[in-house]
Amino acid sequence: MRILGIDPGLQKTGWGIIESQGHSLKYMACGLLRTDAAAPLAERLASLHKQMTAVIEEWKPETAAVEETFVNKNPASALKLGQARGVLLAIPALHGLSVSEYAANKIKKSLTGTGHAAKEQIGMMIRTLLPTCGQIGPDEADALAAAICHAHYGATANNTLAQLQGYR
Amino acid sequence: MRILGIDPGLQKTGWGIIESQGHSLKYMACGLLRTDAAAPLAERLASLHKQMTAVIEEWKPETAAVEETFVNKNPASALKLGQARGVLLAIPALHGLSVSEYAANKIKKSLTGTGHAAKEQIGMMIRTLLPTCGQIGPDEADALAAAICHAHYGATANNTLAQLQGYR
Repeated sequence: MRILGIDPGLQKTGWGIIESQGHSLKYMACGLLRTDAAAPLAERLASLHKQMTAVIEEWKPETAAVEETFVNKNPASALKLGQARGVLLAIPALHGLSVSEYAANKIKKSLTGTGHAAKEQIGMMIRTLLPTCGQIGPDEADALAAAICHAHYGATANNTLAQLQGYR
Repeated sequence: MRILGIDPGLQKTGWGIIESQGHSLKYMACGLLRTDAAAPLAERLASLHKQMTAVIEEWKPETAAVEETFVNKNPASALKLGQARGVLLAIPALHGLSVSEYAANKIKKSLTGTGHAAKEQIGMMIRTLLPTCGQIGPDEADALAAAICHAHYGATANNTLAQLQGYR
């Protein structure tokens, strides 16, 4: 099963694609979508839309995973992140993919065995599990981490559910 | 100029279309987009996406206006509204429309002469300015109010700017 992981952000969105077969994982691709901070908001969201659509059309993932957003104390930041996140959740669903959300500590636990792992530990585990991914930044790492978590916990269950619900 | 006004929400999104020519305004259409609260978030956002795309393709507005979101004290609500808002801002921009955001009090002022008008006053002014709109709900009224504000304040300036920037 080909899984798309997404780490949403208006300025920078990380994405990663892995193949999961039984217990084996294979790195396929990852990257960063950027938007021009000087452009109007709607243009930036439309640009994210086009870039994520291009990723899905090129890599043809079958399912998608996104980290659940940590709702911080600042409603203005939550609104800003929410706007980017809304676009990035809608696109895979428009392409017929089921989209699963995972809590940050569940993702960390699926990679390192603990829900409170440091960023460096996550990065190290990703390089261990996906040795061909090479040097990647923190946003790509978070995106790949969500995809790996989905491969461990959710891919089978979600896929079955999606088939039952006629989504795919 | 044909203007689309949007009042974004995940559960209910109001939309309205008006024609503005010089100082005259003409009501064209309005409606409500709804999503199934029981469906997964990504499916709801994809449904909003499809419905708003259908409105734009049917009514072919040339420009769009949205009320700036009041960022309340609850980051979780801000995130939720942000996700719907992101999709609804991206779609007109994907169709080449410029999208303007107006503060709530600017919209109220453009309709009633005061930035602190009550909801009933707004509804009454919309029925006066757009007598053919008939009986409409509060979300459609807010969407039409944003469109009327855009006709008063922004349409010409934004249009010129959009042309300069080569958006249209």
